[in-house]
Amino acid sequence: MDKAKGWGILAIGCLVAVALAASGKALGATMASKHPGGEATVAPHEGPSDVMPPVTGSPASAITPARRATNSAGQVIPKVHQITFVAKRTADGSLTYNGTVPGPTIEIYEGDEVELTLINQLDVDVSVHVHGVHYKIDSDGTRHTHSFAPPGGKYLYRWIAAVGTAGYWHYHDHVIGPGIDGVRGIEQGLYGALIVRKAGDPLPDKTFALVMQHVWFNNQRYPHTPLLEAKLGERVEFVVITHGSRFHTFHIHGHRWLERGTNRIIDTFTQDPGESTGFQVIAGEGVGPGQWMYHCHVHDHLEDGMFGFFMVRP
Amino acid sequence: MDKAKGWGILAIGCLVAVALAASGKALGATMASKHPGGEATVAPHEGPSDVMPPVTGSPASAITPARRATNSAGQVIPKVHQITFVAKRTADGSLTYNGTVPGPTIEIYEGDEVELTLINQLDVDVSVHVHGVHYKIDSDGTRHTHSFAPPGGKYLYRWIAAVGTAGYWHYHDHVIGPGIDGVRGIEQGLYGALIVRKAGDPLPDKTFALVMQHVWFNNQRYPHTPLLEAKLGERVEFVVITHGSRFHTFHIHGHRWLERGTNRIIDTFTQDPGESTGFQVIAGEGVGPGQWMYHCHVHDHLEDGMFGFFMVRP
Amino acid sequence: MDKAKGWGILAIGCLVAVALAASGKALGATMASKHPGGEATVAPHEGPSDVMPPVTGSPASAITPARRATNSAGQVIPKVHQITFVAKRTADGSLTYNGTVPGPTIEIYEGDEVELTLINQLDVDVSVHVHGVHYKIDSDGTRHTHSFAPPGGKYLYRWIAAVGTAGYWHYHDHVIGPGIDGVRGIEQGLYGALIVRKAGDPLPDKTFALVMQHVWFNNQRYPHTPLLEAKLGERVEFVVITHGSRFHTFHIHGHRWLERGTNRIIDTFTQDPGESTGFQVIAGEGVGPGQWMYHCHVHDHLEDGMFGFFMVRP
Repeated sequence: MDKAKGWGILAIGCLVAVALAASGKALGATMASKHPGGEATVAPHEGPSDVMPPVTGSPASAITPARRATNSAGQVIPKVHQITFVAKRTADGSLTYNGTVPGPTIEIYEGDEVELTLINQLDVDVSVHVHGVHYKIDSDGTRHTHSFAPPGGKYLYRWIAAVGTAGYWHYHDHVIGPGIDGVRGIEQGLYGALIVRKAGDPLPDKTFALVMQHVWFNNQRYPHTPLLEAKLGERVEFVVITHGSRFHTFHIHGHRWLERGTNRIIDTFTQDPGESTGFQVIAGEGVGPGQWMYHCHVHDHLEDGMFGFFMVRP
Repeated sequence: MDKAKGWGILAIGCLVAVALAASGKALGATMASKHPGGEATVAPHEGPSDVMPPVTGSPASAITPARRATNSAGQVIPKVHQITFVAKRTADGSLTYNGTVPGPTIEIYEGDEVELTLINQLDVDVSVHVHGVHYKIDSDGTRHTHSFAPPGGKYLYRWIAAVGTAGYWHYHDHVIGPGIDGVRGIEQGLYGALIVRKAGDPLPDKTFALVMQHVWFNNQRYPHTPLLEAKLGERVEFVVITHGSRFHTFHIHGHRWLERGTNRIIDTFTQDPGESTGFQVIAGEGVGPGQWMYHCHVHDHLEDGMFGFFMVRP
Repeated sequence: MDKAKGWGILAIGCLVAVALAASGKALGATMASKHPGGEATVAPHEGPSDVMPPVTGSPASAITPARRATNSAGQVIPKVHQITFVAKRTADGSLTYNGTVPGPTIEIYEGDEVELTLINQLDVDVSVHVHGVHYKIDSDGTRHTHSFAPPGGKYLYRWIAAVGTAGYWHYHDHVIGPGIDGVRGIEQGLYGALIVRKAGDPLPDKTFALVMQHVWFNNQRYPHTPLLEAKLGERVEFVVITHGSRFHTFHIHGHRWLERGTNRIIDTFTQDPGESTGFQVIAGEGVGPGQWMYHCHVHDHLEDGMFGFFMVRP
């Protein structure tokens, strides 16, 4: 498992989730040159070769959520997750938690607690600020509360996933930068997903975290955006987070889902900096396998390479 | 019926909806110079004449949805809609489906299928990519799947409005442009609305489709934006779609509705590129007739002419 | 009560709400220099002094909603609110309703009516356009309907809070500017909040109105943004309104709430120009007292000072 290129989870005392570094090979190259037969009403034609993309992407990133122990009544047994994040710079200049961008996806249940120790191997102060869950002000991860780790030091954050906080949340640095606002660390990669489940939530076969920032997904543009792979019929969970200074609209071809907390079916949604959401789809449901595009639907962003592929294989 | 200026629906085998080209004359010119009497507490005054707009707009555009045949149990009978789109350039330089911007509004029911034949009279590849409904990857309308019509050729798209896909969707080209992203055709007019109803949905007296892009509605700025006309008490349906590279907020004066899928009453909503929604209002309900403004509420856009009028007549 | 610096409500015949001008002193200065004890795993350290903000803000602004008379059945008794707004320029160059930015927060119930007299002490035409509630076209507050007050004149607006219009709305000028759109008055301060309650809605201990525009809250940047103060356990209501030409995401640290009309728990939301919403939180619930930051989560805006503090005291 190559944590430097995929995701990873470094957990002390508790493995929160398992990072699977998928193959990343250009699976769709053959498909992309195959003309769809049944629907064609003209002689097969090839698009201009200079614009035909290989189907590729970053060494893929998916976690398969761990199944949690339940008691005799079928309830999830609360636990305290002891997690360690090491803030460090990677060879490509990214700032990371544990060497990956995004940082580890943390999956917990309502009732759980997290004790997250941040070890700072950077030469600037760094922190972890979390959304959604409960924490005291000294776990805020901000400069004015002094809740950060200085270079060479560490800091302990405590989070409580109180009942009612189930959702798709996220964490990020809140102190790197010239001001007190601390947005520059986020821009270089210090962010990740937090999933708070409640007992009975349907569990996906795999989970992908995608962070929209500038014209990137996970700080990459096509053809380096994540290649998301699933088999037809798998339950796939997407956690989508936005950072930066631009607005974005997330779209996946051929799939649709309920907007969280509503009865509205959507296949595209606005999500601006600081927001996060998630949803589950059955890969290829009603539409079959294919090389389905995911992208920001903002024209300028799409033209700048803010897209990738969701490969649903038979 | 002047399809070159209004909307039109060219359907082979099935008339999906009927486009009504309304008069487009400056109905409100008289109203605009009449000072409201009952509420005035000062002597009547006239605004500066140089900023008083005539109430005008594009030759108006409304469809009156066709009522569908039902069986003895009152259920809508599923059908296959055979539709033909001809992609062609109009005299003003727009790229269009069937000569209008937006293209035809397609109205179907859950359970229906669409066989859409795209005939390409342009000198570049063109496609139809649809949101919301089901389709196989070879109906994706993208370059990497070769699902487009070359110049002089055609392509057949098959859509299935599976149960659960009822909503306000849209279709657009996905291949015109220098990259694989295909956003340039949308900017020139290759877009339109798709309504998927379910049995029992209240049917409007008329439907307006408004597409926000750049600082335009339907690629027009005031005074060329659509003039929307209704009689007091009519049930009017709006389908609002966003394209381009800007964020927008849609507002109508004097009317309000439930945000789709929620219990929240709104009169303004954010909608960014790639998104679509719809709602129904009773024209003038609780507020009476009037020359009600609709506009993007973003200041710069409003100042650039991103507004029009919803004329509710007694 | 210093209306020039806080909020105020000038109501003829009916006091809609009471503006409390809070102290505005730098309460958190001591806290900010206290290192959090229990969580520290390294020796106490101080952040760079040049970036440590004093906890301060504009002379604070909160209203304590008045409790309404009810009949023997516990129902709220409808009333007609007679309110006077004086449009005037303040010493700092702002354009205001009644001398404050935002203007008075108006709180009414479904079933109520408002007779709002606008007295214009400016040298340009000015109006009040309202969102959400019912009004006839001659209360629209727009130029093309002549529903504005000329310099030295006045205008009477009538609003009806019909059943079904409960929500967090807002009002603003709609005529100042070179065009017919009228957005320039809003930019200089002519805006405020309208709360329509329905019988049985939980009543907050205090209400804060925050208007996001440009990189401001209530036309101020940090350290002049409002300092919001509450005691642990108080029910605090936020009304958030957006104006201008930028998109924004509103976030409060350590607190979360249901997105209006949905079942989705959030702590950050997109809100673009012309939109408004509101929510209630229990100050410090589950997280305790603290100097909680509120801010726009858009990086550029945050770096430009679009933040302030929500001081929750023990």
